[in-house]
Amino acid sequence: MLHLVIADSELELAPKSIVDHPAIVNYAKRRNKKPEEVLLDSTYHHSALKKLEDGERRGRPDIVHVCLLNALESIANKEGKLRVYVHTRNDEVIYIKPETRIPRNYNRFVGLMESLFKNGVVPEGLELLRMEEKSLAELIDEIKPDGVFVMHENGESMKPQEFGKVLAGLQSPLVVVGGFPHGDFRSEIPGKKISLYKAPLMAWTVVNEIIINFEHWVL
Amino acid sequence: MLHLVIADSELELAPKSIVDHPAIVNYAKRRNKKPEEVLLDSTYHHSALKKLEDGERRGRPDIVHVCLLNALESIANKEGKLRVYVHTRNDEVIYIKPETRIPRNYNRFVGLMESLFKNGVVPEGLELLRMEEKSLAELIDEIKPDGVFVMHENGESMKPQEFGKVLAGLQSPLVVVGGFPHGDFRSEIPGKKISLYKAPLMAWTVVNEIIINFEHWVL
Repeated sequence: MLHLVIADSELELAPKSIVDHPAIVNYAKRRNKKPEEVLLDSTYHHSALKKLEDGERRGRPDIVHVCLLNALESIANKEGKLRVYVHTRNDEVIYIKPETRIPRNYNRFVGLMESLFKNGVVPEGLELLRMEEKSLAELIDEIKPDGVFVMHENGESMKPQEFGKVLAGLQSPLVVVGGFPHGDFRSEIPGKKISLYKAPLMAWTVVNEIIINFEHWVL
Repeated sequence: MLHLVIADSELELAPKSIVDHPAIVNYAKRRNKKPEEVLLDSTYHHSALKKLEDGERRGRPDIVHVCLLNALESIANKEGKLRVYVHTRNDEVIYIKPETRIPRNYNRFVGLMESLFKNGVVPEGLELLRMEEKSLAELIDEIKPDGVFVMHENGESMKPQEFGKVLAGLQSPLVVVGGFPHGDFRSEIPGKKISLYKAPLMAWTVVNEIIINFEHWVL
């Protein structure tokens, strides 16, 4: 079983310090929500983000959305060989049941994440997604993988197919992919750093390379 | 060079027969657009879609969006080994320059497609995306591939890595992936039918499998 963690994801509700900013207030009003209940989104909250630390990388639910669409619809997941987790910049972890069908529409996905932040689980009853306060280190402790790898620009260079073989050689490897647009991990890096390509790649590209190269050796 | 065609994509402006429907009119008003200039979107136009032939599969720009994000950010594309085209249900073809950075945000992508339908090219000057009236057969005639494959549930069963090897053995293979949620191609099927998995896969999953298994043999 491959454990894939989208880590330090830029997924959060509008922080308290900017809930009075017009960009947030107007956006919330348009969506009939309270300002403190809307997901931070760089497309709409650009001017408010300028007032925040790390503002140039925050508010990117789109990255999590595309990573999840790819991972959960992969052959590896359909074959029961994959578990996917989202860890956020504020040390929350989202557990996702493998049978979850993530909304295809981005705006519906945003609504779902807002419910999850509010209620801790969605949907009520089925609990396909569940959120807990937890650091990346605590999540890894809990999973007890027999190998931890962190995808990183400055990591050991490895061809994607070689890396897939390494993963397939373990019982329950865990791979960490950064769920942010650029820059470095905020969390301490818990494992061996690996680089699959000479230039930076988008998070979802790395997710695809890992999963499909893992599939080769296990299916 | 691998040519990837997302074919019979459910990408179109709101059809004339339903531009007076309240679901379209209200949606257009909210977005400050004319009803005939908005992209058909099943998430918002569900009740209007019921009045259309094939209404249960139409209005899916999200499928095209995720396929393009994956294809254009792939290692194969960065290495200059890939060309991507979108063919629509109304026989339009979108040519995409490989260096194009598709908007990550879905709503911005929708706005871009609306401009493309209106102006034929976007952005003015750079012309990264260009739309022409053209059937799938005409597009293939123009590309002159030395092999044409259509990804299809009822195709010849082939392991993804085997299929990647077949593609890599050709000079300029062309692969057709359906850009619709379910059902069959509307266009005549122009090549050998291939199936990568025992169950239906989402269009973007097939795109990922094709590209990454092709990369193995050519990078």
